Amino acid sequence: MTKKSGSAPAIRGFSLSASTSVRELAAQMKDAGLQAGQLGQAAEIIHEMQKEKAAIILTFTTNLVSSGLREVIAELVKRRKVSAIITAIGSVEEDVMKTQVDFEQGSFDADDWQLREQGRNRVGNIIIPTAAYEKLEKVLMPFFEKEYEKQQKLGRMLAPNEIIRDLGLELKDEHSFVYWAAKNNIPVFCPAPTDGAFGLQLYFFKQKRPAFGIDVSGDLKPLGQLVLDANKTGGIILGGGVAKHHAIGENLLREGFDYAVYVSTGTPYDGSLSGARVNEAVSWGKVSAKAKIVHVEADASIAFPILAAGMLGE
Amino acid sequence: MTKKSGSAPAIRGFSLSASTSVRELAAQMKDAGLQAGQLGQAAEIIHEMQKEKAAIILTFTTNLVSSGLREVIAELVKRRKVSAIITAIGSVEEDVMKTQVDFEQGSFDADDWQLREQGRNRVGNIIIPTAAYEKLEKVLMPFFEKEYEKQQKLGRMLAPNEIIRDLGLELKDEHSFVYWAAKNNIPVFCPAPTDGAFGLQLYFFKQKRPAFGIDVSGDLKPLGQLVLDANKTGGIILGGGVAKHHAIGENLLREGFDYAVYVSTGTPYDGSLSGARVNEAVSWGKVSAKAKIVHVEADASIAFPILAAGMLGE
Amino acid sequence: MTKKSGSAPAIRGFSLSASTSVRELAAQMKDAGLQAGQLGQAAEIIHEMQKEKAAIILTFTTNLVSSGLREVIAELVKRRKVSAIITAIGSVEEDVMKTQVDFEQGSFDADDWQLREQGRNRVGNIIIPTAAYEKLEKVLMPFFEKEYEKQQKLGRMLAPNEIIRDLGLELKDEHSFVYWAAKNNIPVFCPAPTDGAFGLQLYFFKQKRPAFGIDVSGDLKPLGQLVLDANKTGGIILGGGVAKHHAIGENLLREGFDYAVYVSTGTPYDGSLSGARVNEAVSWGKVSAKAKIVHVEADASIAFPILAAGMLGE
Amino acid sequence: MTKKSGSAPAIRGFSLSASTSVRELAAQMKDAGLQAGQLGQAAEIIHEMQKEKAAIILTFTTNLVSSGLREVIAELVKRRKVSAIITAIGSVEEDVMKTQVDFEQGSFDADDWQLREQGRNRVGNIIIPTAAYEKLEKVLMPFFEKEYEKQQKLGRMLAPNEIIRDLGLELKDEHSFVYWAAKNNIPVFCPAPTDGAFGLQLYFFKQKRPAFGIDVSGDLKPLGQLVLDANKTGGIILGGGVAKHHAIGENLLREGFDYAVYVSTGTPYDGSLSGARVNEAVSWGKVSAKAKIVHVEADASIAFPILAAGMLGE
Repeated sequence: MTKKSGSAPAIRGFSLSASTSVRELAAQMKDAGLQAGQLGQAAEIIHEMQKEKAAIILTFTTNLVSSGLREVIAELVKRRKVSAIITAIGSVEEDVMKTQVDFEQGSFDADDWQLREQGRNRVGNIIIPTAAYEKLEKVLMPFFEKEYEKQQKLGRMLAPNEIIRDLGLELKDEHSFVYWAAKNNIPVFCPAPTDGAFGLQLYFFKQKRPAFGIDVSGDLKPLGQLVLDANKTGGIILGGGVAKHHAIGENLLREGFDYAVYVSTGTPYDGSLSGARVNEAVSWGKVSAKAKIVHVEADASIAFPILAAGMLGE
Repeated sequence: MTKKSGSAPAIRGFSLSASTSVRELAAQMKDAGLQAGQLGQAAEIIHEMQKEKAAIILTFTTNLVSSGLREVIAELVKRRKVSAIITAIGSVEEDVMKTQVDFEQGSFDADDWQLREQGRNRVGNIIIPTAAYEKLEKVLMPFFEKEYEKQQKLGRMLAPNEIIRDLGLELKDEHSFVYWAAKNNIPVFCPAPTDGAFGLQLYFFKQKRPAFGIDVSGDLKPLGQLVLDANKTGGIILGGGVAKHHAIGENLLREGFDYAVYVSTGTPYDGSLSGARVNEAVSWGKVSAKAKIVHVEADASIAFPILAAGMLGE
Repeated sequence: MTKKSGSAPAIRGFSLSASTSVRELAAQMKDAGLQAGQLGQAAEIIHEMQKEKAAIILTFTTNLVSSGLREVIAELVKRRKVSAIITAIGSVEEDVMKTQVDFEQGSFDADDWQLREQGRNRVGNIIIPTAAYEKLEKVLMPFFEKEYEKQQKLGRMLAPNEIIRDLGLELKDEHSFVYWAAKNNIPVFCPAPTDGAFGLQLYFFKQKRPAFGIDVSGDLKPLGQLVLDANKTGGIILGGGVAKHHAIGENLLREGFDYAVYVSTGTPYDGSLSGARVNEAVSWGKVSAKAKIVHVEADASIAFPILAAGMLGE
Repeated sequence: MTKKSGSAPAIRGFSLSASTSVRELAAQMKDAGLQAGQLGQAAEIIHEMQKEKAAIILTFTTNLVSSGLREVIAELVKRRKVSAIITAIGSVEEDVMKTQVDFEQGSFDADDWQLREQGRNRVGNIIIPTAAYEKLEKVLMPFFEKEYEKQQKLGRMLAPNEIIRDLGLELKDEHSFVYWAAKNNIPVFCPAPTDGAFGLQLYFFKQKRPAFGIDVSGDLKPLGQLVLDANKTGGIILGGGVAKHHAIGENLLREGFDYAVYVSTGTPYDGSLSGARVNEAVSWGKVSAKAKIVHVEADASIAFPILAAGMLGE
């Protein structure tokens, strides 16, 4: 919506058949009500972001990488459909793990005590085998050593986006977004790089190399520059968390995002950032008062493939 | 899921293009995690319901008729893809109103005090003009008079499904599910027929005809018979409310639904029926202990078109 | 809120000790933010309903009777703090069952297949033993026979509120709200009386007495009269469902509720009635444009004891 | 719950009066169902954490500081009821701002375009005046200069917990948790210190002092040590976000939390960390297989005052 909606087009019913395409579905959704209507609007706003060559910042939470969206994100990065990524360090970890180990389909109702004994770690209805973390350790320990040497050589700690780029350059997997981001010079920013398994491995690494660290403030300048240099900025914000907050916060450097599409399952009634609607960000100046905005209340694992099919078609 | 999941297939990433079809999307979702995985399973379970010729009971809340799913439901009923419907009386009202008046696209953030002055009634991001209710009154008042005469002639009050069928026979709209249900002899059951505008009109009508009434218990036998006669029963339960509860409750007459797909946005953690997962119904015997079941946490306006595209393809 | 909020009082932090009372907590909440603020406002609005002697209509879903709120509701009805109740028939069933059988504390994560074998029916983290339904059957079958005789004598089918009143007169339990409602002439309306176990028993009873029925339209006049006669009306709406919709719909007969407090866990973004905020009802005229209103997003099992402690203190 | 629940105590109804205390309410909740039951269990588990002298790690999201819980947290820290805090940097910012400027009560339905023009930033139903951020800037700029000098003197970048401690020592406000944490040597860890206004001010500060940075990895060792040294650990996790994930992740260093109480509004069905239930963390080993755990689905602004009243009473 923009703030004032003038006309009032009619709600139209869906007309479906076995051969309806995903893009046609998104187009029909635009004329439907409830969240289908919101999702249809999101597709339209993203289309406009692309047409207007806005710098698109894509943010997402780790579970979306777990879910099967990793490969969609990789494809978007490969084809340079986004200008930057902001995400949790878990997304990077899991992208790396998936280069070597399959995650498994599981159940929301699994017995977690039994899973623990089996070395199977649950994320909703997804299982990550503990073996994947063992492989990750084998990647990270020598990688940290290289980064430590680089730190020593440069005489300064590295920023998260630098470390993630270096890691991406070591990967060889066409389905990895970290790989494509590194290759295509699309930065991956990460405001909390010591969380998760990455942080735990770092904790152990630092017992040997206590001087090794991460200067998290090093992400601020390149992200700020990207936002300031862009003619227009568009945010595609999947889920909540610090990635979402960071993306909109940075756009205070200009007068806010020019386009913003949120997809989340959170409620705004707890005042959480994760559940906040786009209009709340307008009060802050994090989204422009003239921006085209929409919030889709949906699990991004369902909604984002529908949006991405449209993005890939442009 | 069935209770014990044996194997553990891998999560696979989506592979999308501009021409991916909705059915292909649903197939890919089956191998993804989170709610995409649930929705993919739902498509598969419904496919099996159809293959096994289960008696499919479709339930839905009124807002889904408001949203653009009315026409999808009408198409399913026209093509005899379901055996019975259970819904709120509001669904019937709105189906009738939509034969004459367009609903409008609105905003979740509209100013409701202003809308009230404009005679525009809000359902989420959908607007129903008050004019639609005036048209409804013009349909219902003479219709109630006819039903009153029928009551007098039969010497008994009518059941909700009888009244709704009579109403459907008066409609002439290929996009009306009430019309197609009447024409195809597919019963529409309604456990709370005096709620909503229908009830309000009835309140006024009864000032003239106090003897006119609705014997809500009259739905019990035909619904019970349908459930008892079926070789297998399958429930497609969109949203919650009394329609959902009634559908699963009736299946206590057999050993529960043989297939059950729920699509809802409710939480199970408030103990509400609307948010309850399918497994809770297993404890009651309302869903068979051997049933194939899945719960999709999603707004049905997004999820059901994806499922319906598959149903229409069989 | 009323529509325009003029001043902007400060958020104040809580000041708690081991002896803080529930009423003091509610007072402190009024000056806090997020849902605590909403709950504090709800307490204040209910206080004003009571001071202004509004006819208070209390609605609730069945699970709240399951949860431990039955006794709170009974106390409010005993002390005539409400003028009418609208609820699901399950509330009545469970109120009756609880006169004889304890419900049990359970777990949201219970194994429902195992529970089924044990004859234990789950409602969230509450277990209802199947034995309770067997006792219910022993109450209802002779009760239906009496009501059938009454129907024959009167020459008309009874309305839900009449049947529930007759049932209440048979109970002897100081903790039963159905008992106190009957005794204190506080009507219990029920728009869907054939749902649930009540409906299932009725299904069996009608095999012997097919002429027995329930004229659900018989609730319309007394509820309408109550709404029309009241100087002011106040709604305390716990959870969603048909009870909520019915309460606000009836207030269309006047210019809407003068006070409305909703407590629910639903989301407004699916356009469901259960999740709809009070302002949506303003667009419809179901709540007055001048009404004092508030929505509390909370499980009523937590929020309502806090509100009820205040109501009982007046 | 522990994994196997043996006995099955009865659900008991509430018995309330105008003088019921908050602690008595919590005790009654323990015997109720739904979320009241969960909250009652949470109170009991926290009581046991305290009795067993577990090292309690309290995590929370920024909005809870906005809401009125800041002062409750400050009281708990003042009285050394917790051993460590993990939170977002926004919590620290707002704690500082509240030493000088009142936040205002607002509305979830406010017009955000109008608020923007008024310099009023919305967090749910809370308003933060832009003036508060101007005051923050006046605190942070000289503070960063001091920290920069300290960095130069030490020859290493500081960790978030060091910076927050230094900041706390500058405050003089009995209602500030940052102040009490510094004074009582209770560490405040922050895995994403460059987010929010703090990060934005840092972005500007670094234009003058590009060498100034934050070594976010410096939090890992003291937090790890605390977890390893503790006889038992207990987590009180309010809301989600990186603070929650960090707390449970660190407990992998031992065999997981011995006690864990989550209070959140998130759903587990999106696979998000924020909505994940405690049992999911058991599969990972982040919570002990023998731990006493409970999840309360509630807005912490309502639930935590009830829990804190109990904690303060010990």
